Amino acid sequence: MNAADIQELTGLVREFCEERDWDQFHNPKDLAIGISTEANELLDLFRFKSEEDMREIFASTDKKIRVEEELADTLFFVLRFAQMNNIDLKKILEDKLAKNGQKYPVEKIKGKNLKYTELD
Amino acid sequence: MNAADIQELTGLVREFCEERDWDQFHNPKDLAIGISTEANELLDLFRFKSEEDMREIFASTDKKIRVEEELADTLFFVLRFAQMNNIDLKKILEDKLAKNGQKYPVEKIKGKNLKYTELD
Amino acid sequence: MNAADIQELTGLVREFCEERDWDQFHNPKDLAIGISTEANELLDLFRFKSEEDMREIFASTDKKIRVEEELADTLFFVLRFAQMNNIDLKKILEDKLAKNGQKYPVEKIKGKNLKYTELD
Amino acid sequence: MNAADIQELTGLVREFCEERDWDQFHNPKDLAIGISTEANELLDLFRFKSEEDMREIFASTDKKIRVEEELADTLFFVLRFAQMNNIDLKKILEDKLAKNGQKYPVEKIKGKNLKYTELD
Repeated sequence: MNAADIQELTGLVREFCEERDWDQFHNPKDLAIGISTEANELLDLFRFKSEEDMREIFASTDKKIRVEEELADTLFFVLRFAQMNNIDLKKILEDKLAKNGQKYPVEKIKGKNLKYTELD
Repeated sequence: MNAADIQELTGLVREFCEERDWDQFHNPKDLAIGISTEANELLDLFRFKSEEDMREIFASTDKKIRVEEELADTLFFVLRFAQMNNIDLKKILEDKLAKNGQKYPVEKIKGKNLKYTELD
Repeated sequence: MNAADIQELTGLVREFCEERDWDQFHNPKDLAIGISTEANELLDLFRFKSEEDMREIFASTDKKIRVEEELADTLFFVLRFAQMNNIDLKKILEDKLAKNGQKYPVEKIKGKNLKYTELD
Repeated sequence: MNAADIQELTGLVREFCEERDWDQFHNPKDLAIGISTEANELLDLFRFKSEEDMREIFASTDKKIRVEEELADTLFFVLRFAQMNNIDLKKILEDKLAKNGQKYPVEKIKGKNLKYTELD
């Protein structure tokens, strides 16, 4: 993966939206809808698919591009949500990892697919 | 916003998951579920909320942190999905912006909240 | 609205799926994905839309049919999920209404768009 | 499953909401958000879960109740969306099944987990 600063990508997204005068529509609720609907277009590509089907998707150039496009649309709205609401993505990710590190201590969760509410 | 390289953040996410031996659960379908479920926890914070309610959320430190945490969880799974499937987020975002630029030409879409399928 | 028994509609859905030999794909996770992805196709029709835009959608026969089709797809998977997992929709809805009636007592919640966690 | 008329269940949902004076919040966008967020709480119960994990969920009374409650919340918003927008759920489901029957002809789709766009 190439170096890619989040600020730089966010700048591209902001420019794209500002050129189109879209600030007026981009309130938090509708941007959160944007993340959810795009995430579900990504999810839809794996509906009813087996492990083998999924390997086939990533082995096919055409199908892999579909996956990448839906993931890109999801990322677009994540960056836009942060930009419109002055949220520092690096900071909140680091803070959340620190918090989740306590909810999911390595010695209790290692190799388990449990929710922290299911840990004793 | 501070400088924040996507590679660096992705490295933190990968390390978090590898320490916990979670690669075995992180197939594309379940990671896409992760993005969708976290995006919906974010969306849930705005359900039934008016524009004024939303301003109040961002004016309250406690409520803003809830928003930031759900956005961070969503970003976590976007980064993890990309890392597990060798996807270059910068490249796919730039490619998608170029494609969307053609679907939504500035002169046709400016100031409109339409789908490209609704443009003539 | 015409009389419509849930059992009868569930029978139509089951027949549709059995004719196509789809039981093998319809585990709980993938059916829950089905509900989420179809609900998000419905939600997508309202993304960035104002109250006035929404009235226009319901005033247009073509657009209203799009809404109805996505709602029908969502209901399809709700009925299918219940049928495959032996869940009595009437019973669980009545039970949940009783439980929610206690979480949201009329005298505390009337006219408010709060979560029960926000009530004092 | 007991006989359960959709009109009757819809009546219970309408009564629940009207007692709480919630019509003012229940526009189509927010009700579609309701369906999506509740569907994702259901979906979250199966995140990272294997086939065996899922059998365990349905074998545990406590965990099965969690599934039923999230499914009930999803159904609640489907019924409420239909009621607020004068949609006849029986009619739209029958219409959609007829349409899907043509998109997914038995002789082409039997035993396959494909999208109709993937059929030749």
